[in-house]
Amino acid sequence: MSKVFFSVGMSLDGFIAGPNGGAKNPLGDGGTEIHKWIYKQKKFQEMLKFGEGGETGKDNEILSDIINRIGANIMGKKMFVEGEANWPEEAPFHSPVYVLTHQKREPWERKGGTSFYFVNEDIHSVLKKAKKDAGSKDIRISGGASCIQQYLNAGLIDEFTIHLTPVMMGKGVRLFDNIEKEIFSLQINEVVNSPMVTHLFYKVINHKK
Amino acid sequence: MSKVFFSVGMSLDGFIAGPNGGAKNPLGDGGTEIHKWIYKQKKFQEMLKFGEGGETGKDNEILSDIINRIGANIMGKKMFVEGEANWPEEAPFHSPVYVLTHQKREPWERKGGTSFYFVNEDIHSVLKKAKKDAGSKDIRISGGASCIQQYLNAGLIDEFTIHLTPVMMGKGVRLFDNIEKEIFSLQINEVVNSPMVTHLFYKVINHKK
Repeated sequence: MSKVFFSVGMSLDGFIAGPNGGAKNPLGDGGTEIHKWIYKQKKFQEMLKFGEGGETGKDNEILSDIINRIGANIMGKKMFVEGEANWPEEAPFHSPVYVLTHQKREPWERKGGTSFYFVNEDIHSVLKKAKKDAGSKDIRISGGASCIQQYLNAGLIDEFTIHLTPVMMGKGVRLFDNIEKEIFSLQINEVVNSPMVTHLFYKVINHKK
Repeated sequence: MSKVFFSVGMSLDGFIAGPNGGAKNPLGDGGTEIHKWIYKQKKFQEMLKFGEGGETGKDNEILSDIINRIGANIMGKKMFVEGEANWPEEAPFHSPVYVLTHQKREPWERKGGTSFYFVNEDIHSVLKKAKKDAGSKDIRISGGASCIQQYLNAGLIDEFTIHLTPVMMGKGVRLFDNIEKEIFSLQINEVVNSPMVTHLFYKVINHKK
């Protein structure tokens, strides 16, 4: 059965982006520091059309495994706005992407198989659509923080990966704000460390399912 | 040369204690959840006089290594107040403990070699005293969060360990609030995982030293 997951880079003090993010400042002030490890990976460089090259070690394997399992994506409006202004023409998803937004907009098809759908519905209905699209593959809750928090607090996440980097941000967008701790428990599935990043894999046990 | 370090358990959402902590509610509401792994260790049970028994695996080894390197401790007033009401008569430090406080109080000697000194001085002077006491052993900044933040932001920490537990708190005392990111950088020294906790060892590179 397909799973619902998220996978996100986080600074040791809990931030996934710096302050003042937007279309002209993707990831906010200093936010790229958190994600330095990913820019070096072959898989990421392929996806973002940075050309040939990049690291091919275990960080790249982990990233590739995550990307290859995705059958559909769900993201918040703010993440989409930052991405729309900065992704290459061939957007890096190659699968359906549901964007949670009040804005009405026709689907936006990109080269390489990414289709953006703009949906003003509750998160359960959106997940149903994404599951149908994903088939036997998995659904990634792409971000940002608020979108991930909504799905966690609704008891809809099966597992997630934190790519914890040895970085302090001081301020910015915290991943785990507003968490309702009664909704779920966590188990450590696996931890893989490399010089740049610690990959933490958790299983989520949702109590109200 | 002796090192200045801290070692603290943290929930995945960044808390080291729950809300409403105090002498009658040590670690705050739900705060013991964060530290469950440590209560099971042989070394901890010895220190807190819980009797014989406890786990002797790698979690216990890591804890023992940390305890055995300590030559002196520095802690904040709030941590002391919680501890004073709850530590056994033979307090679990067996070395000098400097308590940062405005309160004037004579040194408090406990069985087993713990001496509490109450100091109303700047954190640099207190560290000098602790270093003198520690000799070739290390100085632990015991906590709480505010005390650790002060030493981090003053560029005085050499290394630290986070015992990251698969727990969400939602609210409480955040370890890494008010961090001044320009003061230092981090390097991952080592990561050791166990079913209950992920031990993250970091080296601190202080830029203004």
